[in-house]
Amino acid sequence: MAIGWHRSQSLASAGLGLHVLLCSSLLLNAVFIAHQFLGASPPATPERLGDGLSWALQAAKEAEDVAAVDCSGHGSVFLDGVTGEDGRPGCECNSCFSGPDCSVRIPNCAADGQGGDPLFLEPYWKRHAAASAVVFSGWHRLSYITTDGHLKSVELDRQIRRLHRAVGNAVVDDKYLVFGTGSTHLINALVYALSPEGNAASPPASVVATVPYFAMYKSQTVMFDGREYRWDGTTAAWANNNSSRNPTRGFIEFVTSPNNPDSTLHEPILAGSSAIVDHAYYWPHLTHIPAPADEDVMLFTTSKLSGHAGSRFGWALVRDEKVASRAISYIEESTVGTSRETQLRVLKILKVILANLHGKEDIFAFGYDVMSSRWRRLNAVVSRSTRISLQKMPPQYCTYFNRIKEPSPAYAWVKCEWVEDDDCYETLLAAGINSLTGTVNEAGTRYTRLSLIKTQDDFDMLLERITEFVDAEKHGRAPAASSSM
Amino acid sequence: MAIGWHRSQSLASAGLGLHVLLCSSLLLNAVFIAHQFLGASPPATPERLGDGLSWALQAAKEAEDVAAVDCSGHGSVFLDGVTGEDGRPGCECNSCFSGPDCSVRIPNCAADGQGGDPLFLEPYWKRHAAASAVVFSGWHRLSYITTDGHLKSVELDRQIRRLHRAVGNAVVDDKYLVFGTGSTHLINALVYALSPEGNAASPPASVVATVPYFAMYKSQTVMFDGREYRWDGTTAAWANNNSSRNPTRGFIEFVTSPNNPDSTLHEPILAGSSAIVDHAYYWPHLTHIPAPADEDVMLFTTSKLSGHAGSRFGWALVRDEKVASRAISYIEESTVGTSRETQLRVLKILKVILANLHGKEDIFAFGYDVMSSRWRRLNAVVSRSTRISLQKMPPQYCTYFNRIKEPSPAYAWVKCEWVEDDDCYETLLAAGINSLTGTVNEAGTRYTRLSLIKTQDDFDMLLERITEFVDAEKHGRAPAASSSM
Repeated sequence: MAIGWHRSQSLASAGLGLHVLLCSSLLLNAVFIAHQFLGASPPATPERLGDGLSWALQAAKEAEDVAAVDCSGHGSVFLDGVTGEDGRPGCECNSCFSGPDCSVRIPNCAADGQGGDPLFLEPYWKRHAAASAVVFSGWHRLSYITTDGHLKSVELDRQIRRLHRAVGNAVVDDKYLVFGTGSTHLINALVYALSPEGNAASPPASVVATVPYFAMYKSQTVMFDGREYRWDGTTAAWANNNSSRNPTRGFIEFVTSPNNPDSTLHEPILAGSSAIVDHAYYWPHLTHIPAPADEDVMLFTTSKLSGHAGSRFGWALVRDEKVASRAISYIEESTVGTSRETQLRVLKILKVILANLHGKEDIFAFGYDVMSSRWRRLNAVVSRSTRISLQKMPPQYCTYFNRIKEPSPAYAWVKCEWVEDDDCYETLLAAGINSLTGTVNEAGTRYTRLSLIKTQDDFDMLLERITEFVDAEKHGRAPAASSSM
Repeated sequence: MAIGWHRSQSLASAGLGLHVLLCSSLLLNAVFIAHQFLGASPPATPERLGDGLSWALQAAKEAEDVAAVDCSGHGSVFLDGVTGEDGRPGCECNSCFSGPDCSVRIPNCAADGQGGDPLFLEPYWKRHAAASAVVFSGWHRLSYITTDGHLKSVELDRQIRRLHRAVGNAVVDDKYLVFGTGSTHLINALVYALSPEGNAASPPASVVATVPYFAMYKSQTVMFDGREYRWDGTTAAWANNNSSRNPTRGFIEFVTSPNNPDSTLHEPILAGSSAIVDHAYYWPHLTHIPAPADEDVMLFTTSKLSGHAGSRFGWALVRDEKVASRAISYIEESTVGTSRETQLRVLKILKVILANLHGKEDIFAFGYDVMSSRWRRLNAVVSRSTRISLQKMPPQYCTYFNRIKEPSPAYAWVKCEWVEDDDCYETLLAAGINSLTGTVNEAGTRYTRLSLIKTQDDFDMLLERITEFVDAEKHGRAPAASSSM
């Protein structure tokens, strides 16, 4: 009984304990259930959804939904792509791929080596999605004016200067900064700025370049040809024939360094001329950097720096205040400055680049690896050929990487060596390779330019076609366009 | 005993039940605890934070953090604003306000009625934050090319046409669409497109406008003045003096409708000329819409449509294929198209506008309420004055609102009536009001333009200064700039 009582008491006590425990446990269950399904804390009000996000949540979801669509690695979906029957934008495929998810390789597709689309950097930005994303509020920069009465972002100006200093590719401290809708926009802005005033009695400035030169210097100058300046041919005519040169005449010489199309570093040819030095490719992934550039008028663009060609953003570094001021007037008059959306986005992109400089995610190290590998593979194939050759590029010391680097040019400058191939563009085209004929650079038909900066798909297709072309040489005839896929 | 046994059995049974319940409950608690603190489901991995957001989360938080900063209703923070000591961008204040949160009204501040900044729509976009936000991935539109080989968004082209059809302000079905970096960029693109070819034997086209005209038509034409066209003064000289006019000579006439500065609807003056009709203000919040515009060459801009002046986006509707094609060539040659960031953002903005047409959040209804109220209040003050007057604007029937509307012009076109006030700009400036002198429109110094489309702060300050100015008339002298705040 004592035992029984004890047992009973103990059992009752145990029962009470169990009851307390059970009640506590049930209460805890209730709390958890309430928490889980009723969303007691944190509340499931719209303001608290999305980890505390409110107005930016919907746009962020839209962007992630679109980015999550699978395009088989051969394409991407863009928020502003054409919407299909389901109301959503679909995959936009790389060249030579098609199908809803870009998985179908198009038979007999010609390799596209023509344009300068810098898509080799797209994988870098896909890898750095979180750091490089940016959200625009509906009210972002409605005004013509940004901070402190400028048309340009003061912060972006600061970050561009930081980048040049950190990379060591340009001296910025004694320069004015002019923004343009791509460096394209600045071509004529600078020609205008360096020309005599419109109402001056002086003859128009002569705008010239050295063969082979970037075709747009001529085409844009001719389009805008006014009283103050005119396109006046290539430098050779003026440099080699001093007697015919009027020393009082104003020259504006375009210099691209590294050069487009042949990727060599150039300096002005005409002594005493105003030079516009286009440094679009003067970044460590596309050339070695022997020293910071320090010309009076220099041009840069996001296109080849970060791959953001579609953003249409470029800048000029200008030593002389009056020249900078005239270039800025031109930009204001022609477009009232550059897009403020682009300025915000480029600011974000530059911050990512700066944060990763010299680290394992350095964009220049990434780009250099891609581009030097492409050049090496292309050279290995072309070195077996007697029919075509490439520009010779030795390894060079680069101050940014602090070591000797292999070449990593943006373009292959192809020469057709056989007598019968007097139109190199046509020769390659017959082999299923689209290129940019040397006639646009006044370099003649013996030369043609192949772009190496496009997508990996583009390069792979290019290498495949070139390999077929070189392999066909042993038959001593031009190969027909391949039909094997 | 039986009872005892029964009780004992029942108690044991109850104890067993309790045990089962307790164990279940504890197990459930364990599950909840695991769920809650170990993140079993959904996992608390970075990929699942933020309501399922991953890469877009950080950017969305940055944007919301910045937008949440309080600027006292007299300013905003922008993501690309200048960063302070805490590394964050600070408030950028409206005119006449200062301080870290823009709460300090600047004493003796002149009212700014000069520029055409369309900030009256900023409150609309702050109210529609969620719908109008847009997220840019780092890899958005790296390429020069958008969908299907275009430099422009096919989707944006479609939405612009949808908007014109829905608003009824322009006939689009038989027109080509050309995008520019603001309609500013299209001014010269269209002059170029309508001029004789550069190599043609024909004399240059004469570019003209009617007084009072938007100053940039002249300044930009003069800057770009080439062989193909030249600025040739105002239409009056040509319209009134037919004998001196060579009928074979090409004219390009700029027409702004509603006109800037005086907000009246205009048509071309010179018969047989090519007209570029600038419809920047031809939207239902800034004018009545008598009928869809259907000229051969029409200009539009987001600046006055949605208030996105900083975006630098405009478009032309062009009937003739060859003219459109030449204008597109000009845009390609001068800038390689417009910013793809801007195109995506404008697409989003147009979708919000379209989704709300004729609803209670109609942007045109919102804008009309603001602008008609400003006009009414300004008129009430100026009607007491003998010293200044405004353009007369009757109520008019509007096809969009389907009713008679009060005027809601973007600008007040002020005339100084007193003989001694022969420079109206100076007269207002002495009263602490900054305006745009009529000399820039070739309208003479008797006139000056006051902007009504800026922030509410700007308008309030303007009305305050105008009221002081009119109240001072009874003393028969110009009031000094106010010192009372």
